Amino acid sequence: MPELRKDPITGRWVIIATDRAKRPTDFIRQPVPPPPPGICPFDYGNEHKTPPEVLAYRNSGGRDEPGWRVRVVPNKFPVLGIEGDLNRQGEGMYDKMNGIGAHEIIIETPQHCLTLAEMPERQIEETLWAFKDRVNDLKKDSRFRYIILFKNHGEAAGASLAHPHSQLIALPVVPSTVKEEVDGAKLFYEMKERCIFCDIIRQETLAGVRLVMETERFTVIQPYAPRFPFETWILPNRHASHYEDADAPALKDLAWVLRSTMRKIDRVLEQPAYNFIVHSAPVQEAELPHYHWHFEIIPKLTKVAGFEWGTGFYINPTPPEESARFLRDAGLG
Amino acid sequence: MPELRKDPITGRWVIIATDRAKRPTDFIRQPVPPPPPGICPFDYGNEHKTPPEVLAYRNSGGRDEPGWRVRVVPNKFPVLGIEGDLNRQGEGMYDKMNGIGAHEIIIETPQHCLTLAEMPERQIEETLWAFKDRVNDLKKDSRFRYIILFKNHGEAAGASLAHPHSQLIALPVVPSTVKEEVDGAKLFYEMKERCIFCDIIRQETLAGVRLVMETERFTVIQPYAPRFPFETWILPNRHASHYEDADAPALKDLAWVLRSTMRKIDRVLEQPAYNFIVHSAPVQEAELPHYHWHFEIIPKLTKVAGFEWGTGFYINPTPPEESARFLRDAGLG
Repeated sequence: MPELRKDPITGRWVIIATDRAKRPTDFIRQPVPPPPPGICPFDYGNEHKTPPEVLAYRNSGGRDEPGWRVRVVPNKFPVLGIEGDLNRQGEGMYDKMNGIGAHEIIIETPQHCLTLAEMPERQIEETLWAFKDRVNDLKKDSRFRYIILFKNHGEAAGASLAHPHSQLIALPVVPSTVKEEVDGAKLFYEMKERCIFCDIIRQETLAGVRLVMETERFTVIQPYAPRFPFETWILPNRHASHYEDADAPALKDLAWVLRSTMRKIDRVLEQPAYNFIVHSAPVQEAELPHYHWHFEIIPKLTKVAGFEWGTGFYINPTPPEESARFLRDAGLG
Repeated sequence: MPELRKDPITGRWVIIATDRAKRPTDFIRQPVPPPPPGICPFDYGNEHKTPPEVLAYRNSGGRDEPGWRVRVVPNKFPVLGIEGDLNRQGEGMYDKMNGIGAHEIIIETPQHCLTLAEMPERQIEETLWAFKDRVNDLKKDSRFRYIILFKNHGEAAGASLAHPHSQLIALPVVPSTVKEEVDGAKLFYEMKERCIFCDIIRQETLAGVRLVMETERFTVIQPYAPRFPFETWILPNRHASHYEDADAPALKDLAWVLRSTMRKIDRVLEQPAYNFIVHSAPVQEAELPHYHWHFEIIPKLTKVAGFEWGTGFYINPTPPEESARFLRDAGLG
């Protein structure tokens, strides 16, 4: 008998298939190939092929020259424009505004062919610092209500360039999915006067069945009601609502945890395409007692079809207790 | 400058790219190939390869024999089980219940190789009748709170079998996406005392820019804030909340409209993979003044990536005014 499970934060139901549970080898796996050789705008020497950098950590060189370790540039083809006013207006019964926002690329390393699992920890740590620094800079602009950090790895996950990079989009509105999550967490807080994510960490650490690993500062789990097989959450043990407030020891530990998690995923699922998304509180809000920032990693193993689009109800062929066991057994932690 | 547009029903924002607007030829198009030959459980003579039929319209033959025109069978690999109680229970802080529901396959024709655009109208009409008859039968079971009808066409859209078929899933809960849509429509009704979908039909008919076609009973539009390029809605002109209450003249007209729409989409986008989803009110509710059933067709042209998963905010590279023009200009209406 399949199980219907409810995500405690959003109230979203998922169908967890138990009879025909899929093991890692049951998925059609298409390992993300190494980046093809050729001219890459993110390589050393091609700095002029991107818009001028907004941030770089460097060993040598001047602005827009080689010698950087991590480099952040505006997207050459941004989905939103940085200049201008929102100019909110109606169009008959409809509402629109100008597409104001920022769209930046965080180039994680000058090396064309490294994955997160292969990068030195220090390199990941600097990428995480770039995330923090860019959000702290952009949040000064009061037009921006939400800033999302994410990574698409592999063509199946929506990546169009193979050189290791993440993205940042600053938005003039708080998106609906974020609002649902924050509002859901707030409702729980109003009932219990506790953060729901802190409760999840406590219950998962105790139960252990969905636990992937834990360090002094982070807990990695397969959530109770995952939409996707091998959906993985990385949560800071200490309550905090905004990623950009994370301190140096936290980012150092997070780099280790993120790398270990990606190594496990790569080993069990054979270098799958994946997305990760940083879930953090809206940037113009002060520290929130009810929200808890975290990373969500989604390996791209299944296709979203009519049922999911029509209902928001996901069918997950792998119980999280099983995926957690595979990831724990992979070692490398 | 891109535009941010708000869906008036759900309040969901989308980014409509205007600078780098994509025309149909800009999408990497992979026409859905004709079904491969080979043994198909949905062909005549293989009726024993599926579970026993729950409905069939026949010219000849007995139960589970050839001679049918449309045949409905339980899915051999159902995502939910039909027998048993929900047995709602807690698991620590979490909530779950048994995966009770129905999962049926509507085999639209005995012919292995027809698409919706190629089928005789009468065949589509009978498929639409099968939708109606199955929902009316299943809604007698009070465990089912929502019944979704949908079609996945082509592997990219999640289809695993190529023989023309749609699916039905009856669920013990009203899914979150449906709830959002119904609640959004209700909020509008409370403010205006009018159905928001009726208002949309009126405004779109008047404006014309997003109109694809209209008949006596149906209006086909590209919505104002579509998540996906060429997202297409088919709405009945007369207010009604439940698909299963549609009468014979409506289903006859809908068959013609659906076929014409698919012919246009196939011509402009070269037989793309697609999903369609029937949006209808929860089955245990009486006729609702605020909700309006309709079809949503989503050609599979773009990849959903980290940004969309993280925010519920979609980036649509084709303004609906342009896709509407392409579909109008395709003729065949």
